[in-house]
Amino acid sequence: MSEAERDAGQFAYEGLDRVIHERARLGVLTSLIAHPKGLAFGDLRRLCQLTDGNLSRHLQVLQEAGLVDVAKSFERNRPQTMCHITAQGRSRYLDYLAVLEQVVRDAAAAVKANPAAAPLSDLAPA
Amino acid sequence: MSEAERDAGQFAYEGLDRVIHERARLGVLTSLIAHPKGLAFGDLRRLCQLTDGNLSRHLQVLQEAGLVDVAKSFERNRPQTMCHITAQGRSRYLDYLAVLEQVVRDAAAAVKANPAAAPLSDLAPA
Repeated sequence: MSEAERDAGQFAYEGLDRVIHERARLGVLTSLIAHPKGLAFGDLRRLCQLTDGNLSRHLQVLQEAGLVDVAKSFERNRPQTMCHITAQGRSRYLDYLAVLEQVVRDAAAAVKANPAAAPLSDLAPA
Repeated sequence: MSEAERDAGQFAYEGLDRVIHERARLGVLTSLIAHPKGLAFGDLRRLCQLTDGNLSRHLQVLQEAGLVDVAKSFERNRPQTMCHITAQGRSRYLDYLAVLEQVVRDAAAAVKANPAAAPLSDLAPA
């Protein structure tokens, strides 16, 4: 059995849930984990530097997956959209985070073990 | 100035290079960082648990971005495809890794600061 056969799937990272892993949604969920009382749409947009349209689209994906709650209300007679992470969202985010930490550990170990890993061919292309 | 204005872009994570962040490509690059002498196509496929078609497609994206090198050769008279990470690939991977480590730190800090963050509404839906 070759090394690669023994380690089949070592770098598959199936736990990197695609709903959460997408860059903008990862930012949105990390913002909401850091603000458990919820964030107004405008604050979330600024923290993640997304456009209105982009944030709306990603919130819809997260809401359909049951990871966030979006509630419209009135604040001083003005309509306000508040976003919260759900209990399920928090739980799935924690599972995702454990896999992300494994990626970082694998990567840091590989980089440390191979400090001069660049093949010579990059330095002097044929 | 509100807290959200002060922290504008705090969770934008623009350094999460989309070419690298995609789950399968992240696995491919981490495999290649860990194997600086290169990996045969079949070994890479097993390590990342990808189909032939998927691995080919992701290698093409990485090759077009200059992050990997794909070379066809003959090993004991049989054609063999060898994959290497390039110097540019290693450098961009290291930049990406620094941002990923920041995400993990932000997330771990947020989770630790809010251990019971789930809103009551999840436990007893209206």
